[in-house]
Amino acid sequence: MAQEYHVAIIGATGAVGLELLRVLERRDFPVKDLRLLASVRSAGKKLQFRGCQFAVEPLTEHSFAGIDLAFFSAGAQMAREFAPIARARGAKVIDNSSAFRSDADVPLIIPEINPQDVREHRGLIANPNCTTAVALMALYPLHRAFGLRRVFGASYQAVSGTGTRAIEELRRQVTAAVKGEEARPEVYPHPIAFNVLPHVDSFGENGYTREEMKFQNEGRKIMHLPEFRASITCVRVPVYRAHSVALSAEFTHPVSLDAARDVLAEAPGLDLVDDPANNRYPTPLAAAGKDHCQVGRLRLDCALENGLSLWVTGDQLLKGAALNAVQIAELL
Amino acid sequence: MAQEYHVAIIGATGAVGLELLRVLERRDFPVKDLRLLASVRSAGKKLQFRGCQFAVEPLTEHSFAGIDLAFFSAGAQMAREFAPIARARGAKVIDNSSAFRSDADVPLIIPEINPQDVREHRGLIANPNCTTAVALMALYPLHRAFGLRRVFGASYQAVSGTGTRAIEELRRQVTAAVKGEEARPEVYPHPIAFNVLPHVDSFGENGYTREEMKFQNEGRKIMHLPEFRASITCVRVPVYRAHSVALSAEFTHPVSLDAARDVLAEAPGLDLVDDPANNRYPTPLAAAGKDHCQVGRLRLDCALENGLSLWVTGDQLLKGAALNAVQIAELL
Repeated sequence: MAQEYHVAIIGATGAVGLELLRVLERRDFPVKDLRLLASVRSAGKKLQFRGCQFAVEPLTEHSFAGIDLAFFSAGAQMAREFAPIARARGAKVIDNSSAFRSDADVPLIIPEINPQDVREHRGLIANPNCTTAVALMALYPLHRAFGLRRVFGASYQAVSGTGTRAIEELRRQVTAAVKGEEARPEVYPHPIAFNVLPHVDSFGENGYTREEMKFQNEGRKIMHLPEFRASITCVRVPVYRAHSVALSAEFTHPVSLDAARDVLAEAPGLDLVDDPANNRYPTPLAAAGKDHCQVGRLRLDCALENGLSLWVTGDQLLKGAALNAVQIAELL
Repeated sequence: MAQEYHVAIIGATGAVGLELLRVLERRDFPVKDLRLLASVRSAGKKLQFRGCQFAVEPLTEHSFAGIDLAFFSAGAQMAREFAPIARARGAKVIDNSSAFRSDADVPLIIPEINPQDVREHRGLIANPNCTTAVALMALYPLHRAFGLRRVFGASYQAVSGTGTRAIEELRRQVTAAVKGEEARPEVYPHPIAFNVLPHVDSFGENGYTREEMKFQNEGRKIMHLPEFRASITCVRVPVYRAHSVALSAEFTHPVSLDAARDVLAEAPGLDLVDDPANNRYPTPLAAAGKDHCQVGRLRLDCALENGLSLWVTGDQLLKGAALNAVQIAELL
């Protein structure tokens, strides 16, 4: 990549936006210049990139002049409003929200899984849901080996998946508890400190949340597996960073533990951490800040014929968001 | 119950032991007199019961003279050593540990499910695993209506399930974090504050933990359902009290949401808390301290033909331990 790019980050002051800056820096992405955009509320803030200070500008329809590449991480509503404007100005858009993921003409990419789909893009590429991305890093290599039919699972999702206000909310509630006080919930409908909430994103008509259905919908699209079924319960837990998922996965072909271990040990972007006798298994604290996802607790599923039970953990701000977005940009 | 009983509590100073005292008091159990027993380390401590102070005595083989009813909540090893002695002295034993649960001649009882089994006892009755007990409160009524085949699930287990030292460990680690310090793990192999650990009880040869296999093994025995299969991942979370379980349950008969709701709304010991549009679903903070378990997030399972997905929460020190033990004693 001799070429250098005029890059914009939309939602630069959010949890994912800040992470994007660090990932671009760390991976020596060929940034010619950088425009940091956010809501009027955050405009004027200063952020560091490669030792220089950049002022955050308010996002307007004129923000995209001269931009080659626009990373959107500002939610679905902002993406729906401003991504078409950015495209019209000639920028390639990589959007971290759910706004366009199910659109037939928008590729949904995990570079380790379906890099070839990026060729179909028309100026807009979607970044997958964080929990789905982390889980598929382990499920897809297993699918290639054994043919994935369906999964049952439950997630343990960190508050940083909601954003910086949720990180502050957990911190405030925990600090209050230590002082014997109480801090009312503002971001979540119930306290998140010392609690778990089976409620991530809004509820749909079938009783699943939108977050839960993303697993099946996005899994189908990314793996090119239209019959794939996934029944997930998504749960917010008092963890700052890194999501975990417990999965029972059913396959069309017989599975063996040895073959599954070999497949996972060789999978790109994934570390096999699976020595329970020595207390080695993935945990969110250990996975936080790491580019690779981690898989462990691998066992033949005792309630399925051709099944594996497993536990996957990954930093959802990295593989589930910023890292994956930059990897997509590198594919381009 | 005009008769009154000479009652002993073994492990009286533990998390379950303390709860047993409160449940006996609250349910006006006909206690004639009370003997509180524990390890030498805890002997001499004073505990309140019905306004009187009782000194904790060290547990010895002579502790059971004159005792009618002995509640054991001191772990499997102590139960194996002392329950036979208590029986030999004529006491009826209700044991909260896993020591005897799979013994053919020891009834394993949840009074709302299999009260009739108590008639088979030979002086010893086992109290089920806490996670299993909480989940079966919802699964068994559904089984009666639709015929349960298997479940896939993941748990969110509170630290009080490990005991008082684990409660202190979470508190210490959280307090340290608020001060910007670090508190090393002592009870768990990894930090539990702001983390989740897919590790409850020890690991078996098939890769499942003993806790995870209890769900299938105890479920079969309690529900008289020898073909029942359960694949569970048990996870410790930074919650003080009340366990939660996310479940996908498969049935032999077709299920409807309305019928399932009716069944659960009428089930004994269970509250249906299921109005997600208004953010009403069970959470451990809300279930803590309550006798009833709570079920919600009910939906037709999108990856099963005859399936339901649900979320069950219950105070594992109550229904999962002390309350269930006293209910068994009341059956006697």
